[in-house]
Amino acid sequence: MNYDDLFQTQLDALKTAGNYRVFANLERYRGNFPRARNHAGGRGPDEVTVWCSNDYLGMGQHPDVISAMHTALDECGAGAGGTRNISGTNHYHVALERELASLHGKEGALLFTSGYVSNWAALGTLGARLPGCVIFSDALNHASMIEGIRHSRAERRIWKHNSVEDLDRQLSEYGPDVPKIVAFESVYSMDGDIAPISEICDVAEKHGAMTYLDEVHAVGLYGPQGGGIADREGLSHRLTLIEGTLGKAFGVVGGYITGSAALCDFLRSFASGFIFTTSLPPAVAAGALASIRHLRRSSSERERQQQQVARLRAKLDAAGIPHLPNPSHIVPVMVKDPVKCKMISDILLEQYGIYVQPINYPTVPKGTERLRFTPSPAHTDADIDHLVQALRALWSQCALSRAVA
Amino acid sequence: MNYDDLFQTQLDALKTAGNYRVFANLERYRGNFPRARNHAGGRGPDEVTVWCSNDYLGMGQHPDVISAMHTALDECGAGAGGTRNISGTNHYHVALERELASLHGKEGALLFTSGYVSNWAALGTLGARLPGCVIFSDALNHASMIEGIRHSRAERRIWKHNSVEDLDRQLSEYGPDVPKIVAFESVYSMDGDIAPISEICDVAEKHGAMTYLDEVHAVGLYGPQGGGIADREGLSHRLTLIEGTLGKAFGVVGGYITGSAALCDFLRSFASGFIFTTSLPPAVAAGALASIRHLRRSSSERERQQQQVARLRAKLDAAGIPHLPNPSHIVPVMVKDPVKCKMISDILLEQYGIYVQPINYPTVPKGTERLRFTPSPAHTDADIDHLVQALRALWSQCALSRAVA
Repeated sequence: MNYDDLFQTQLDALKTAGNYRVFANLERYRGNFPRARNHAGGRGPDEVTVWCSNDYLGMGQHPDVISAMHTALDECGAGAGGTRNISGTNHYHVALERELASLHGKEGALLFTSGYVSNWAALGTLGARLPGCVIFSDALNHASMIEGIRHSRAERRIWKHNSVEDLDRQLSEYGPDVPKIVAFESVYSMDGDIAPISEICDVAEKHGAMTYLDEVHAVGLYGPQGGGIADREGLSHRLTLIEGTLGKAFGVVGGYITGSAALCDFLRSFASGFIFTTSLPPAVAAGALASIRHLRRSSSERERQQQQVARLRAKLDAAGIPHLPNPSHIVPVMVKDPVKCKMISDILLEQYGIYVQPINYPTVPKGTERLRFTPSPAHTDADIDHLVQALRALWSQCALSRAVA
Repeated sequence: MNYDDLFQTQLDALKTAGNYRVFANLERYRGNFPRARNHAGGRGPDEVTVWCSNDYLGMGQHPDVISAMHTALDECGAGAGGTRNISGTNHYHVALERELASLHGKEGALLFTSGYVSNWAALGTLGARLPGCVIFSDALNHASMIEGIRHSRAERRIWKHNSVEDLDRQLSEYGPDVPKIVAFESVYSMDGDIAPISEICDVAEKHGAMTYLDEVHAVGLYGPQGGGIADREGLSHRLTLIEGTLGKAFGVVGGYITGSAALCDFLRSFASGFIFTTSLPPAVAAGALASIRHLRRSSSERERQQQQVARLRAKLDAAGIPHLPNPSHIVPVMVKDPVKCKMISDILLEQYGIYVQPINYPTVPKGTERLRFTPSPAHTDADIDHLVQALRALWSQCALSRAVA
């Protein structure tokens, strides 16, 4: 049997569908975000402006974060040297977990190597170990939640995206003795819409369900201290579990969950994806800790980001470029065709020095391909003007619909 | 429903069984490995000697590694800022993947956020996407491989640990048109024994099966350039896929697979755990790259480690302390009882300043609890003498069997 042929056949199908991905080889440089060196080898200018990063506030270049990482690197060395249980718990992990618990007003927190792993491991473990558990999953939940639920083998019910009525109806099919988990996100990454958290909590409480909230696209960005949408709306105490990431607005890498002491201890003790893996490097934990502490006391990054988001939307509207309306910092410009989406992205890079990755299947459903712009505090007014001018020129050339999507 | 009560009940059962884990809070300090500050708050001395780290060669404190990380941190900032596809591919990732492919003599390599994720995602994706695939898994494979196989929903056959005969027999039950994956490790982490790789390849080739080799406890440590056991035995070209980690002998964090260009592109394009996660920080990739390059040209760390391993074994034998015989760098001292194992570990820490975590279920089967020592090039002869004296005193006190396990 020729396994390479089997692999190649499936890759060829991706290419035919226009969904084959080519990674842009970039070199971010500190002090110069959102600028990056382009290592594509002749494709486009040497320097490009990044318009699709999830380092939403530029904290990946913040002096406090960089300095904390240098210090921890010199103090503790490169890696953690083991799993959390076997020599890999460093005092930075302990301090970071305390800070995260405090940020979300919870008794405890638990670090994972990524946000993906935190969702996969937490839902996988809860669903598998709560006897007879049913997981109620929002239809647009992230791949990591879907895989965690799948892995748990628990019964899964998918409720209509952000529909409290559908959730209520589905929950009411199960009696009070059935353990239930309502799993959803606050800010949905690709459409940028926001869940009705308070109403979802009402319904969950009515039916005696746990609530599991993924705030990865909200932590650092919303709330007076950057605790996310639940923090902004004063709802943190109503969520059983809040999951977040250290790799987006906090600018580093890693994931976590927060909740009651018993919940954290339960996942610490039973989650395979937590137990059997080398813990985060001390320097990563130190950098994340510095980033969180900064964003708890400073709102200027959040305010400036919101200004630039509003500015981009207004300029897009004025130019007649269709974008999804939403109340978040994510600006999706809809193209609805994988080949055109890639083509526009290529031209933006090569002719305008604008880097925005085409978003295609499986990240979004087929037919909803888009360019997803994430303005940061570091994008200047001139950057926004340049982007909108480029899009306007392309929209004319490509004869794409100017109607609002 | 009180969910905390459900969690607590399961935690109480762990405590009753003696399997509840308490993490040691340590502060490794660069330049002083295997010494670490003990933050346990009164439990034991302020400084302890770590005897159970997987930073096997102390590369986590190597000047080349630390320096490369400082440089990349200053150049590129803290995090990668996105997934590999969406703005998160840095030139360090590209260079590191090239280096890993070269280390293992393969066409390509693919980075993951951890070794756990690389096993879970690669086996999960291969098993799910090769139609009708059967995975033949060694009975002692690591949790990450087991979870990946489980996740794939492919048929799973477990073969007797390291038994080529049993593997042959089970493979022969399937026709030539069935895609097959033989999944195994080179060095098994808890017993320290080594697989008969050449014979396993013979049998796999005879039946037209892919071979999937986990070398996480071997990369950096064996072979003229640290390519692992397959490298040492000149067998790398016979393995379809070699999986490794950047978090043990290479001293940083992260995982990877290597194989044909088509295989790497296949996993790059289809593995959810690769696609939907923030990529490793540039500084982590830079540190791992420096570590690999150093260990490809220097054998002194490997030689010194082997000397200290041999010295510890000889001293244990002389003292009549039972340890599992094996041909690797892992020295398991068997206690076979979770409560005694924890007790000995506590006394070693508190009275002798020796930190070795008790290894209990689920990391090893119940009844095989052990202390697992990993001598590094940085452990001195005096460290070894102190350890063996402490164990000898304890073995007398606890009246444990002195017979070889």
